Amino acid sequence: MTRKEVAKLAGVSEATVSRVLNNVGPMREETRVRVMKAAAELGYEPNALAQQFARRRSGNIGVILPFVPKVHLFSTYYFSEILSGIGEAAQRLGYDLLLIFRDPEQSPDYAKLFRTQKVDACILLGSRDVPEERTALAEMKREGHPFCLVNQRFPEESFLSVDANHVAGSRMATRHLLDRGYTRIAFLNGPLHYSNSRDRLEGYAAELAAAGIRHADDWLLEGNYSRKSGYELAERVAEGIASRSVDAVFAANDRMAIGLMQGLKELGLEAGRDYAIVGYDDSDGSRLTSPGLTSVAVPFYEMGTMAAERVLEELADGGVRKAAEVEGIARDGHTYILPVSLKVRESS
Amino acid sequence: MTRKEVAKLAGVSEATVSRVLNNVGPMREETRVRVMKAAAELGYEPNALAQQFARRRSGNIGVILPFVPKVHLFSTYYFSEILSGIGEAAQRLGYDLLLIFRDPEQSPDYAKLFRTQKVDACILLGSRDVPEERTALAEMKREGHPFCLVNQRFPEESFLSVDANHVAGSRMATRHLLDRGYTRIAFLNGPLHYSNSRDRLEGYAAELAAAGIRHADDWLLEGNYSRKSGYELAERVAEGIASRSVDAVFAANDRMAIGLMQGLKELGLEAGRDYAIVGYDDSDGSRLTSPGLTSVAVPFYEMGTMAAERVLEELADGGVRKAAEVEGIARDGHTYILPVSLKVRESS
Repeated sequence: MTRKEVAKLAGVSEATVSRVLNNVGPMREETRVRVMKAAAELGYEPNALAQQFARRRSGNIGVILPFVPKVHLFSTYYFSEILSGIGEAAQRLGYDLLLIFRDPEQSPDYAKLFRTQKVDACILLGSRDVPEERTALAEMKREGHPFCLVNQRFPEESFLSVDANHVAGSRMATRHLLDRGYTRIAFLNGPLHYSNSRDRLEGYAAELAAAGIRHADDWLLEGNYSRKSGYELAERVAEGIASRSVDAVFAANDRMAIGLMQGLKELGLEAGRDYAIVGYDDSDGSRLTSPGLTSVAVPFYEMGTMAAERVLEELADGGVRKAAEVEGIARDGHTYILPVSLKVRESS
Repeated sequence: MTRKEVAKLAGVSEATVSRVLNNVGPMREETRVRVMKAAAELGYEPNALAQQFARRRSGNIGVILPFVPKVHLFSTYYFSEILSGIGEAAQRLGYDLLLIFRDPEQSPDYAKLFRTQKVDACILLGSRDVPEERTALAEMKREGHPFCLVNQRFPEESFLSVDANHVAGSRMATRHLLDRGYTRIAFLNGPLHYSNSRDRLEGYAAELAAAGIRHADDWLLEGNYSRKSGYELAERVAEGIASRSVDAVFAANDRMAIGLMQGLKELGLEAGRDYAIVGYDDSDGSRLTSPGLTSVAVPFYEMGTMAAERVLEELADGGVRKAAEVEGIARDGHTYILPVSLKVRESS
């Protein structure tokens, strides 16, 4: 009994039979049912299921997360949305999620997760561009394990990645402030060991340059993506507003923007009246503040879903790196780049 | 070389040596280091580690989650905080978290997760009091697998559970509204197959009864804990306010409260001016709305941490059910009950 016969009876391709029986990749429920019926009718199923279990050693997708003491990680919009998206795809494709926290004391050893059969594929969140991370990623790749990075690229490496177009998003945010007549736009960024921080700086600088504006050094502020780090910069920004060297702020995420807004409010400065501010992420919080926070919307949920789908596709293909086209999604080498958009509210 | 000698050299009890080498239970870092040093010095370590690995079959704590299509589960304050707490304890005690979504189409089979060695212990979130759930829990218990329920009790069963005192929390919320002079208090509750919804109803009714108030039938509203379900009840509540049959609302979570506030605002009714409202959870959102939302604070993070610690203690004890005292925490049989508190803001 061969896969060919199942395909013929079900009226689908052999590849589809394979995908259904290996439970990978997006597929219509109707197709799945037709293939399962044909397989059962031909007595192909038990064998295929055995194969499936032999191949899917653990049935787990590993999700590697940064461990940050005291930070309630899943309560941050960014992580919780990506994780919800991964969870949706995992559930649909029959996988469980194994959450693994990076041990801050030790060099990462991701390949070991595969060797000890804890995971069949792996998604990395909050990855940083530091030497020990590069070493651990290169080892996984050398050993042929399927993995996908989310929201962090290593441009010169051909790692499978899902990212959003943060250069375009930062240009939109800066352009919007310029269009509203603001010309002294400070930029509150996160640490530059994240590629998505570097992307934002690039977009901000490019848009200012296109408008013939050279950004002053004291416009560049750095926080660590926490609300507190934004709050703590309030006095410095207030001085800039008072001395008329700053009239607007673009913040690299909503948490920092909200912290800064709160700090400035305590100093008597109101967003949308005394200065303009644009955040990034379009989190729940941006809709609940007063005034509402203008923000760049990033499809984090869809990025999570896509990372899970792509990495399971790669697993189905025996760990062979490939970068297939996905309809409607831009691609740069092995990186899928999802579009972002601007949500304008009262803060600007 | 025995455990006794390691204990002597480290100056701790044998039980402590055991806990350190098996990596279970809360312990001070200083103690851990002292035991590891003594074990290494006496050459006890490799053997103990082998033991540890033999015993810890998977190294995973399973976390069972409800699967709700389209809901971004990890973006809800309740789940994300509990999960962050579980994650903190898991990381500290050397375990990974395996997230498992309930398949809405199938009867749950939790015991299988142990038989197939996917998990060593298991924590259940969003459990419901329905027959197939009871069957699956009873089977786990019969087979001696360690598990813990969070925020859901099955009173007549002796399942290990961590809960918050929602009866007291609901009394506080209702008492607060009565103290402010409101006497026609509607109650927007969640579905009654959750014990924590039933607890809230009990607290609300008891506090009204203590004040000599009989609650009218049309004061009882039911949503499904989503923002939308609160929003959709706005017209009905607005009618109650207009006809003076309602002057305040107690909502069983912040999401429903915020949805209702938004809906009432669109109808021209302002919280804290035209009516009072109290939510539940003290989520981030309650601090960001205007006016700020009075809410009952629940220690979800600590509940998650405690569930992980208790269930790993039980694992260390070979799956024997026991209900030990934990300093400062109330206990009712096998249920640990954490205290809640009221955060008063402008909405009331």
